[in-house]
Amino acid sequence: MNNIDQEIFNLINSQKKNFPLDQKFYVDNIIFEKDIEHIFSNQWVFIGHVSRIPNIGDYFTVSIGNESIIVIRDKQNKINCFYNVCRHRGSHICIESEGNLRKLICPYHAWSYNLDGSLKKASMMGEDFKKEDWSLIKCNKNIFEGLIFINLSDKPISFAEFIKPLEPFISLHGLGKAKVAIRKVYEIEGNWKLALDNFHECYHCHPSHPEYCEVHSKDYIQSYGAGSHSGPESAEFNKLLKNWNKKVDDLGYFRGEYSENKFSNFYRSAERTPFSNGRLSETRSGKPASKLMGNFKEFDGGYTTIGPSPFNSLIMSNDFATCFTFLPKTNKKTLIELMWLVDNNAIEGIDYNKEEISWLWDETTLADKRIIEDNQKGVLSKKYVPGPLSKMELGLEKFKNWYLKSLKKSICV
Amino acid sequence: MNNIDQEIFNLINSQKKNFPLDQKFYVDNIIFEKDIEHIFSNQWVFIGHVSRIPNIGDYFTVSIGNESIIVIRDKQNKINCFYNVCRHRGSHICIESEGNLRKLICPYHAWSYNLDGSLKKASMMGEDFKKEDWSLIKCNKNIFEGLIFINLSDKPISFAEFIKPLEPFISLHGLGKAKVAIRKVYEIEGNWKLALDNFHECYHCHPSHPEYCEVHSKDYIQSYGAGSHSGPESAEFNKLLKNWNKKVDDLGYFRGEYSENKFSNFYRSAERTPFSNGRLSETRSGKPASKLMGNFKEFDGGYTTIGPSPFNSLIMSNDFATCFTFLPKTNKKTLIELMWLVDNNAIEGIDYNKEEISWLWDETTLADKRIIEDNQKGVLSKKYVPGPLSKMELGLEKFKNWYLKSLKKSICV
Amino acid sequence: MNNIDQEIFNLINSQKKNFPLDQKFYVDNIIFEKDIEHIFSNQWVFIGHVSRIPNIGDYFTVSIGNESIIVIRDKQNKINCFYNVCRHRGSHICIESEGNLRKLICPYHAWSYNLDGSLKKASMMGEDFKKEDWSLIKCNKNIFEGLIFINLSDKPISFAEFIKPLEPFISLHGLGKAKVAIRKVYEIEGNWKLALDNFHECYHCHPSHPEYCEVHSKDYIQSYGAGSHSGPESAEFNKLLKNWNKKVDDLGYFRGEYSENKFSNFYRSAERTPFSNGRLSETRSGKPASKLMGNFKEFDGGYTTIGPSPFNSLIMSNDFATCFTFLPKTNKKTLIELMWLVDNNAIEGIDYNKEEISWLWDETTLADKRIIEDNQKGVLSKKYVPGPLSKMELGLEKFKNWYLKSLKKSICV
Repeated sequence: MNNIDQEIFNLINSQKKNFPLDQKFYVDNIIFEKDIEHIFSNQWVFIGHVSRIPNIGDYFTVSIGNESIIVIRDKQNKINCFYNVCRHRGSHICIESEGNLRKLICPYHAWSYNLDGSLKKASMMGEDFKKEDWSLIKCNKNIFEGLIFINLSDKPISFAEFIKPLEPFISLHGLGKAKVAIRKVYEIEGNWKLALDNFHECYHCHPSHPEYCEVHSKDYIQSYGAGSHSGPESAEFNKLLKNWNKKVDDLGYFRGEYSENKFSNFYRSAERTPFSNGRLSETRSGKPASKLMGNFKEFDGGYTTIGPSPFNSLIMSNDFATCFTFLPKTNKKTLIELMWLVDNNAIEGIDYNKEEISWLWDETTLADKRIIEDNQKGVLSKKYVPGPLSKMELGLEKFKNWYLKSLKKSICV
Repeated sequence: MNNIDQEIFNLINSQKKNFPLDQKFYVDNIIFEKDIEHIFSNQWVFIGHVSRIPNIGDYFTVSIGNESIIVIRDKQNKINCFYNVCRHRGSHICIESEGNLRKLICPYHAWSYNLDGSLKKASMMGEDFKKEDWSLIKCNKNIFEGLIFINLSDKPISFAEFIKPLEPFISLHGLGKAKVAIRKVYEIEGNWKLALDNFHECYHCHPSHPEYCEVHSKDYIQSYGAGSHSGPESAEFNKLLKNWNKKVDDLGYFRGEYSENKFSNFYRSAERTPFSNGRLSETRSGKPASKLMGNFKEFDGGYTTIGPSPFNSLIMSNDFATCFTFLPKTNKKTLIELMWLVDNNAIEGIDYNKEEISWLWDETTLADKRIIEDNQKGVLSKKYVPGPLSKMELGLEKFKNWYLKSLKKSICV
Repeated sequence: MNNIDQEIFNLINSQKKNFPLDQKFYVDNIIFEKDIEHIFSNQWVFIGHVSRIPNIGDYFTVSIGNESIIVIRDKQNKINCFYNVCRHRGSHICIESEGNLRKLICPYHAWSYNLDGSLKKASMMGEDFKKEDWSLIKCNKNIFEGLIFINLSDKPISFAEFIKPLEPFISLHGLGKAKVAIRKVYEIEGNWKLALDNFHECYHCHPSHPEYCEVHSKDYIQSYGAGSHSGPESAEFNKLLKNWNKKVDDLGYFRGEYSENKFSNFYRSAERTPFSNGRLSETRSGKPASKLMGNFKEFDGGYTTIGPSPFNSLIMSNDFATCFTFLPKTNKKTLIELMWLVDNNAIEGIDYNKEEISWLWDETTLADKRIIEDNQKGVLSKKYVPGPLSKMELGLEKFKNWYLKSLKKSICV
């Protein structure tokens, strides 16, 4: 172990139970590089939905740190992901963030690639040149129910193993027959771990998110606001949940909870929970906002929350889904992309309107942006000392422990 | 001594008498960090005046490097200074640069603090949680004649010892019964030492400051322009001073000079000097600009210049005071804050107008901003070599020597 | 050899023949600093033309990295180059990028220098002060046919030796009797070597430069597009060249080619080549765009391309010249300055118009800016791997080899 790793190793070991991380984790550039290489790059992260590129040749690009990934639909209707780097001199190939192409032609020297990434034409090359050696470099990719997952590792963990426990939760909502209704990107001046600390606790919901507290009950927020057991149990909510579970069983819909029971590369969670006060959807009024999706024949009065990894979240009512992607950019900058999905037969203006389905999480994410940025500023002080976590920050503590173990593991191998 | 310190130590020893500093002192980031930790943080620096926050709950924030300090008046009418860092997760508590608050409530999770910094309420904490352990972290503070001094060191030097020689000079002007008439902040793209080099000599006054040369006599500028003995003696000015001293003694006002006679943490100076040509105040016309302040019953035709530390200056006519604060931000950025004080009974538009009292130092500081920025650009050249100082740069040489000794001391302990 | 040098040395040795450079050469800051110190600073680089400062006291400044150079015409009509650094405290002396001055007066303390750089006046200096010790620091300079060459090295290579092989090519065009018709500066977000890689091959001309391909023939572009033998030979073009050479000999004008035949500090090339299709000048129409320059009595249907160093290029029709200067700013930023020269008797609006003479290289450089910037983005990817060069990138390969040898030499001394 070199000196730098030894120092980080010691720092990891000195972190206190039930306190947030020390300053260095939120500001240090070397730790950030390790985060990207060993934490982010080892996860399956969804970065879009197939409905964004419905036609052959449709593409979009995703930018993560210094990487740009092309996501494109080929002539076999297969979606491919490529590093946006020409094999000749390295130029970006796709300059626009989305569009439609018949071939991938590098704008520099016109090396052209088929939509499956194979090199189609490179003029004036030498006699020894073999086209088959110079296909675009693929990025690991898997599609599940229309969600496009990528993995930047050279040895990705098994996607099948990864998706297995989440399958019934996702499948229920018919995302494979959905379409993107809206997309928004929020640029946060803060370390990705401050953004995820924020996302893993609902202690701040009452002071900071009036919209969220309007939609969700006090009891739910207390015990499940940032996921199952993110806060103390609520007898009230447990009763509500028990009754609702029975109702859902009667309706014949899937329900339940999933969480990791031992440390691994995975950091997944899922649960189905009821709304209160007769609400049917995660909207301001509580009334449905679009056509029923997936297996639902009627509104069951609940919704589904899934965390496939720390970098994604799916929050799904019966009639629309809010999808979160967290993309670390630098040690002090993070992008949060939100994508709202509705049934692909739903018609804007008739079955749904954008404002209604995006209202809650747009407002909430804008507030989180402000909160995270103010947190980053304070954490830079020499007088910042981690303080004791509340009973409602169990989710943060859990995420922190997973993060520290993951980082330690990457150093010790 | 580690390698880096050894290198800085050798560099300090190689600096030449009567020449400015080598390039490295003005550009190096490691030296900048040492400057903040060992030079700036060891000084008592005034960062405002009590009249800026007259009512209970009034506050403002001050930003120095990565630190933000809250200055707030509590219910006992006491002014407190706190690091703007919540004890829970470290968020900034005050987001606005000034305002009025009944409690200090962190916008993140609503931990609320009393105006004396004690933690009032933190919901959902564990059984072992003791509120008294989590008060806001105080910043060392002292108030003298309404000036709010802070000290970022964990072991600040004695304020009483610090202020003692300056007391009669400051007291004379009744700043404790003053109010802020105007405040302006100038952002300088230059190292703080280039800003202070500029402030410690008046060799540049003739070419660069026509306004200053209009108000002050050639003889004064030569020998006292940047403080007592900042340039060669002037028999003419000495005569003027001698006569004026007699007059002031007759009037019964305090007068005299103070300067350090041996090296210490302190770098203070003070002197009372006459205007020439019948001028009564540091205004364009030389005519009074506001009500008499402090002990003055009539204009004595002189004014008072005080340097409590390199980071502050007070330049006081009988009827208003100009207060300077230099705040280093990065190795190449410095803020200069100017605050003009008048008697708290003076009424704007009747007793004084802002333009008249701020004219000289606003114009002069704008010119200094340009000068310092052009100096920084040239100092970055590989061909920059310190040149010989003139007879009018004794003040700069003195400041440089104090700086070098202070830095050396911090390395050698 | 220290560790860093050893690492760079190993990296140099691992570069593959007929592949572009590894990522590190295009992004690393330490390599960039070595590039400036050992590659750029060892070259004679022209940074302007005497006609830009026709009158005594006329000046302009040039900025390279942290350096600013003053180029000024003195009272003996001699052009001098000085580092823009006052010998006193180091301030920039010339703040504007061009103008006219009777003396060089530092705006800080009014030290004044004669136009030959000698110190004229510095007030209030000590008794030991000798004005003759404090002249402005000269920058090595030579003028040839009106082109002002500077060299930032302390031990510049011989200018006479440098210019010798290029003399007849340049002299032919009478640049000494020319004037600047237009100047434009293009700021490129890319490493200087990516900018020069681009300039040393015409493989990208067909896909990226429709204007260039409109003006020049396919055969010329193939074999000479980025200089002699920058691509495969063309029998067609060789025939054209042979016939044209004969014609030029008959007209009595100089013609021929020059290229380096062994490795040295120099990296020069020159050639005279014909246009095709009856074109007479490098304009859209092919028709003359201004008065004949230099020795030309009639249009000879060809033009002259000269690379005095990697940082300059001269592309000269019989009636106007396009002059290129590449100025590295940071590891990821480069300025390209273009200057178009016409005969000094030519009158704008009558003999020439700016749009016509600047059209080709303005359009082409704007396209190159885009190309280089997209290249830089892709090169930052962890998946960037140098790909095989085409037969039309011989010029790039040659430049790369010269660069690697030059860098290696600087490390090994």
